[in-house]
Amino acid sequence: MKIGILGMGTVGAGVYKIIQENKKEINKYLDNDIEIQRILVRAINKDRAIFIPSELLTDNYDDILNDESIKIVVELMGGIHPAFDYIKQAIMKGKHIVTANKALMATHGKELEDLAKQKGVFIKYEASVGGGIPIINTLMDSLAANKIEEIIGIINGTTNYILTQMTNYNMSFDEALKLAQDNGYAEADPTSDIEGEDAAFKISILTSIAYGISVQPNIIEREGITKIDKNDIKYASKLGYKIKLLAATKRFNDSVGIYVYPSLVPNEHPLAAINNEFNALFVRGNAVGEVLLYGKGAGSLPTGSAVLSDIMSVTKSINNNIRNSKKSDRLDNNMEVRGIGKSQYYIRLQVIDKPGVLGKIAMTFGEYGISLDSVVQNGRDEKSVPLVFITHDIEKEVLDNTLKVVSSYEFVEKVASILKVESIEK
Amino acid sequence: MKIGILGMGTVGAGVYKIIQENKKEINKYLDNDIEIQRILVRAINKDRAIFIPSELLTDNYDDILNDESIKIVVELMGGIHPAFDYIKQAIMKGKHIVTANKALMATHGKELEDLAKQKGVFIKYEASVGGGIPIINTLMDSLAANKIEEIIGIINGTTNYILTQMTNYNMSFDEALKLAQDNGYAEADPTSDIEGEDAAFKISILTSIAYGISVQPNIIEREGITKIDKNDIKYASKLGYKIKLLAATKRFNDSVGIYVYPSLVPNEHPLAAINNEFNALFVRGNAVGEVLLYGKGAGSLPTGSAVLSDIMSVTKSINNNIRNSKKSDRLDNNMEVRGIGKSQYYIRLQVIDKPGVLGKIAMTFGEYGISLDSVVQNGRDEKSVPLVFITHDIEKEVLDNTLKVVSSYEFVEKVASILKVESIEK
Repeated sequence: MKIGILGMGTVGAGVYKIIQENKKEINKYLDNDIEIQRILVRAINKDRAIFIPSELLTDNYDDILNDESIKIVVELMGGIHPAFDYIKQAIMKGKHIVTANKALMATHGKELEDLAKQKGVFIKYEASVGGGIPIINTLMDSLAANKIEEIIGIINGTTNYILTQMTNYNMSFDEALKLAQDNGYAEADPTSDIEGEDAAFKISILTSIAYGISVQPNIIEREGITKIDKNDIKYASKLGYKIKLLAATKRFNDSVGIYVYPSLVPNEHPLAAINNEFNALFVRGNAVGEVLLYGKGAGSLPTGSAVLSDIMSVTKSINNNIRNSKKSDRLDNNMEVRGIGKSQYYIRLQVIDKPGVLGKIAMTFGEYGISLDSVVQNGRDEKSVPLVFITHDIEKEVLDNTLKVVSSYEFVEKVASILKVESIEK
Repeated sequence: MKIGILGMGTVGAGVYKIIQENKKEINKYLDNDIEIQRILVRAINKDRAIFIPSELLTDNYDDILNDESIKIVVELMGGIHPAFDYIKQAIMKGKHIVTANKALMATHGKELEDLAKQKGVFIKYEASVGGGIPIINTLMDSLAANKIEEIIGIINGTTNYILTQMTNYNMSFDEALKLAQDNGYAEADPTSDIEGEDAAFKISILTSIAYGISVQPNIIEREGITKIDKNDIKYASKLGYKIKLLAATKRFNDSVGIYVYPSLVPNEHPLAAINNEFNALFVRGNAVGEVLLYGKGAGSLPTGSAVLSDIMSVTKSINNNIRNSKKSDRLDNNMEVRGIGKSQYYIRLQVIDKPGVLGKIAMTFGEYGISLDSVVQNGRDEKSVPLVFITHDIEKEVLDNTLKVVSSYEFVEKVASILKVESIEK
C-alpha cells in the first residue's frame, strides 16, 4: 500500500520511524506492507532529526495528488490552511485520508466527512485527540452499542504538565510554563494550549462522535489556566482537590453541555492522579458503565502509533474493496449546545479583612440563592487576605451576577479566581 | 441481521437488553438492526429476570444450527462442553461466531480460529477478557502497529473485590469472600477466581493476541489469593504497597514471561488505585508507550456491551461481503514460555523471636546470593512473631531453595507468605 505524507515534523517523523521499525507487525496485520511513496515538505534540504532518502521528498503537492499509485494521503501539517484544501483535493481524486489535524477536524469535519462519503473514501483521525490513546476507535467501534452519557477528561498535555509542576513543586504559572517550554511540552507560542483552545478542538471532535452533532469549537464555553496561581493550588489541596484543566461533553435530554474549564477534582477521582503530559478520558455509556483510557496524549511515537492504526484500518478496507457507503448520516442530530450548566464553584476573593466581611459576603450569596459548601479564611489583621468559598450547585450566570455585587463592596479588592468544582458521580 | 444466542444467563440478559434499548445507536452504526432469531436455553419455562417472548426460546440447538437466516451464533453459555462442539458445528455451517467464553478461547482458541479461517468466517471474543473494557480491539487494531512489550493488569474482579475489602475494612479472606458472594461478585464455587485460574485463561488469550503464540493456561505459573492474610495486607501497607492479584505477559528476546501472582504494587503505581470489582490493563508498546484501560471487568451490561461490539463488527463485515481470508497465521510465533523470571519478593516468616534469629536468617539469604531490600520485625519477647523481608531481584527457584533451608531452622515456625513485588518501570 502506497501512501503520501504531508508534513514531516514531530508526528511525521514518528510515523516514518514506526513504518521502518515495526514492518513485521504491520505486515502481519495487513498481509502487505505500508510503503511511503512521497513526502510533502516545505524545504527539501532542511536538516531533519531522522534521515529520509531525498527522492521521497517533494515541495510540490501535485507530485502526491497526481500520483495514482498513492491511495492514502496522510496529513500531518496541522493548521487549517493549506491542509483543508489539500485534503479536499485528495478526496476529489478518490484518495483516502488519515489526519492528525484537530483544528481542521473540529472546524471543518462535517464538510470533509460529507465530501469523503460522496466520493466513497474514508477519512480517519484517531490521532487528533489523545495522541496514542485509542479514544476515537473506542467510541466509534468498541462502545458503538452504547448511548454515551458523558465524556470527561484531561486532553491537553501542556496544561496538565504545567498544573502538575505548579502542584508538586510550588511553581508559579510562569515558571511552570517556562519549564514546559524547555522540556518540549509547550510550544514557543503556547496560547492555544494554555487558553483551552486546543482542548476545545478535541472536545468538539469527541462530541461529534459521541452525539452525532457538529459543534464549532468557538462556541464552546472555555477558560484557560493562565489565571490560576499558587494560592489556588494551595487552597484546593487544603480542601482535598487537585486542579486540572477538564474538557467535558455531557448529554441531557435534548441538549449537550460542553465546556473546557479549570476544575477542582476530588483527590479520590481517577482524573486527579493523571499527571504531567499524560492524558486520560473518562467515558460513561449506558451499557458499559465507566471506562477510563489513559496514556501519552502527544509525542512523536505515541501519536504516530495512532496515525498508523488509521492507515492500517483504511488499508484493510482498500484490500477488501470496501468503500465508504454508509447510508445514515453520522452528524444529523439536532441538539441544543449548552455550557457547564449547574455546577459547584470555587471562588477566591481578595478582601481587606475586618469584622463582618465574611458575614456580609455570605449574606449576599444567600440573597442570590447561593448556598456555600465550605469557606476558608486565613489571617485576621485588617490586611488584604484571600477568602475562599466553595458553593453548592448553581448556574454560572447567577454566580457572575452575585460576584458583580460582591466585587462592588469597598472591602473586596478583587475576584481573584473562579474555578469549577467537579463532583464525583458514582 | 439475524443472530442466534446460546445461553441466557447474566451476559445473555445484558445482550438482550442492549439490543432492545439501544436500537437507535446500533442502527446508526450498521444501517440495519440486530434481530434475535432464536435463543438456546436449558429450560424453556424457567423464570428469568427479563421477559423474553417464548417463541424465541428453544432447547434444541438444531433450531439455530439449521436456521439459514441466522448468520451469527453468539455463544454465552461458558465452559468447554458443549460450547466447543456447538461452535465448531456452527462454523462448519458457515456461521460467524461471537463468544464471551474465556475458558474455551484460552484452551481451544487456535483450533477454533484455524477452523474459522478455513471456512472464511469470523470468530470474535472481546467479552472474554475485561468485560466492557475494549482490550482486545485495542490490541488487535488500535495498537496493531506496535511491538507489544508488556501487558500487566488486574483482570479478575472477584479477587480484586476481596482484596479491596480486606485492605479497606481489615477483613479476613474468608469474611471478604463471604461478602463478595453476598454481593454477587463471587460465585457459589469461587475456586476458579480465587485460585487464579480465571486470570490465567485471560492472560493466555491476551498473550496470543500480543505475541502470536498459543499458550495453554495450565502451563501458566500461577498462584491464587487464598493464602493472603490480614498481616500481609498490613505489612504491605506499612512498606508503601497494595496487594493485588496481577496477571502479566512480558516479551523478552525469544521468550515470553507469563504469570498470575498476588503482588505488592507500589502505592504510586496506577494499578494500586484500582479497587473493588474494577479491572485495569496496562499495555506497553514500543511506539505508543504506556496505555491504561480501566472499567468494569464483569457484569451483565458491561460484558453485553463488548459482545454487541463484536456482533456489530461482524455484521459490518457481512454487510460488506468480507470473508475471513487473512493469509498470515496469527498464531505462528515460536517463543519459549517462561514464568515470572527475576523479581523482587515479599516473604513473611513466622519465627520464635530471640537474639540472633534475624542475623542467622539474613546470613542464609546472603549465602544463597539473595540481598534484602527491607526488613520489618515486630516484637521482642521470645514469642512467635512475624518477620517480613523484601528481597532484591532473584529467581523464584533460588528463593524456594533458600526458604527450604530457612524453614529447617528450629526457630522458624513457618514460611507464611511469598508474594511478588512489582517494580515500576518508567
